[in-house]
Amino acid sequence: MTAARLTIALDAMGGDDAPQMVIKGANIACKRFPDVHYLLFGDEKRLRPLLHKAQKLAHRCSIRHTEETVPNDMKPSVALRQGRQSSMRLAIDAVRDGQAAGVVSAGNTGALMAMAKISLRMLAGIDRPAIASFFPTMRGESVMLDLGANVECDANNLVQFAAMGDVFARTVLGCEQPLVGILNVGSEEMKGHDEVRAAAATLRGGALPIQFHGFVEGDDIPAGTVDVVVTDGFTGNVALKTAEGTAKLYTEFLRGAFRSSWVARIGYLFARHSLQKVRSRTDPRRYNGAILLGLNGIVVKSHGGTDAVGFANAIGVAVDMATNRFNDRIRDDLARLSQAAQTAAQPQAAAI
Amino acid sequence: MTAARLTIALDAMGGDDAPQMVIKGANIACKRFPDVHYLLFGDEKRLRPLLHKAQKLAHRCSIRHTEETVPNDMKPSVALRQGRQSSMRLAIDAVRDGQAAGVVSAGNTGALMAMAKISLRMLAGIDRPAIASFFPTMRGESVMLDLGANVECDANNLVQFAAMGDVFARTVLGCEQPLVGILNVGSEEMKGHDEVRAAAATLRGGALPIQFHGFVEGDDIPAGTVDVVVTDGFTGNVALKTAEGTAKLYTEFLRGAFRSSWVARIGYLFARHSLQKVRSRTDPRRYNGAILLGLNGIVVKSHGGTDAVGFANAIGVAVDMATNRFNDRIRDDLARLSQAAQTAAQPQAAAI
Repeated sequence: MTAARLTIALDAMGGDDAPQMVIKGANIACKRFPDVHYLLFGDEKRLRPLLHKAQKLAHRCSIRHTEETVPNDMKPSVALRQGRQSSMRLAIDAVRDGQAAGVVSAGNTGALMAMAKISLRMLAGIDRPAIASFFPTMRGESVMLDLGANVECDANNLVQFAAMGDVFARTVLGCEQPLVGILNVGSEEMKGHDEVRAAAATLRGGALPIQFHGFVEGDDIPAGTVDVVVTDGFTGNVALKTAEGTAKLYTEFLRGAFRSSWVARIGYLFARHSLQKVRSRTDPRRYNGAILLGLNGIVVKSHGGTDAVGFANAIGVAVDMATNRFNDRIRDDLARLSQAAQTAAQPQAAAI
Repeated sequence: MTAARLTIALDAMGGDDAPQMVIKGANIACKRFPDVHYLLFGDEKRLRPLLHKAQKLAHRCSIRHTEETVPNDMKPSVALRQGRQSSMRLAIDAVRDGQAAGVVSAGNTGALMAMAKISLRMLAGIDRPAIASFFPTMRGESVMLDLGANVECDANNLVQFAAMGDVFARTVLGCEQPLVGILNVGSEEMKGHDEVRAAAATLRGGALPIQFHGFVEGDDIPAGTVDVVVTDGFTGNVALKTAEGTAKLYTEFLRGAFRSSWVARIGYLFARHSLQKVRSRTDPRRYNGAILLGLNGIVVKSHGGTDAVGFANAIGVAVDMATNRFNDRIRDDLARLSQAAQTAAQPQAAAI
């Protein structure tokens, strides 16, 4: 692959407001990344008219027509069988076939995960993909995974997530030596269920060359106590959405406060500029674009309900990862980690 | 029990800043509830000097001396065996023996739960206690349970939590017909793990006379989509602490914004009064005092790290529950619910 022209595959039909939102989002991304080309997978009859209003994109994309789509409520197993010609699957296959450096979809998460796993296959040493995303904290930015790919995880999965999160924090967030923590209901070793305790014991034992902090609690996520928060997909999904909802609640309370009296309204006028900075710093669209880690290819999942600005940011994540050769680095690092893990596991295996 | 003098038992040695924080908190509560008497369980040598500075409380309390305490890192099973004379256990036993109408502790949650279960026993029809608390939402206040009593729950436990949460919302929040939801990673029926799907199927089938909304997601908690959020103790604990941490993060961001320029500082001066209302509405101390539901007695758990104001609020929760004869009402309602569940279960049992 030459660096001259980076191509990103887009599932043009995925997302609540697709395909309009996808086309608008890609048009915004065009201004930001002038050298990227896009493959749009979807219904040509619906996409063509939209491209008339997205001139920048129109000159830098190719449409790959398909009328099939994956509905939001389709089970992943059904999508795998019936969705082989869907916009989502064909966009993923373009990455497998080397036609695109990465794929972005705002569609059905479970289906995207299942299809990506089948089409792209897992990296050596990783059993299951994980969804990772970064978010604002008191100390900068941190990454959390899994955010919903696996509703149930065993200790081994959590250890692999720790390894992937470590690489992600180093390559994407630029942490030199990321601090990794496992999400739990308390910081003491005895807390939590078997899976988190066993995973923590493995990491504490130094099986992997990562800096393990121990257990963290829910309030440690926004506090930024660690750079990488490791958890199962059920808990991670709930935690992420709870944080987003709480930020929204707070914003509403503030809006109400500033409208409650004319004195407060004057206060708002003075503080407006500074408050807008807070809003932009905590804007969920800024953090849109979750990465499916552990696959032989770059797959970015956008929020289904995002707008064009949010979708453009998700494209940005895919472009950044492709430009920085994220997957090559994660593959190298995982090989090293897996070797270390095997070395660490050998004496234990012999002792059984 | 006569309504003339309500007595509340306090674990004076539980909490990060105990016993000072407990004594100060009870002294604040004395001003709010002039007719309540307190039984203080703890080390008399440490409590006596503190009572000199808490004159209101000094006249309305009795000390029950014990030198034993339950450390924060003690396993519940160990606390059960070794803590029979601890301040926590003796305070619980006072409720069992009818000497107090309820107990408040800011100590080790697991130990409190285990001891309360052994000493007070469970209500008929409930297998496990659950921790419940209320919190601010876009639409008022909602209740969530379990918040950490049970890190693993089966479908049956979740159904029982739904029943208890329903009663709690009616008696404490005053909802006439509370809307109950189960926390999940999506709203579709196929989402989540076996436990949440089975619990939802039972509630959807009308086994209990409650208004079941279906699945809710993390952002529905602060949105107030339902009045009662039902979840396992692991997820509930993480969600609650994530929400608290996010509120704190937002407050910090705002503080920074108002300090970032002199124009913003002027804005703050104008808006200060309205902003303080938001702060008081979202003050975690206002929502301090989680209730251990499902027991034959009123047990309130305060945050371990709270201050005197927060502890006074936790006492307030116990006083409110005792005054409103919460446990009598929950017992009646549970009997009705359990009867309805048995009736609903009979035809199914016959069909097997």
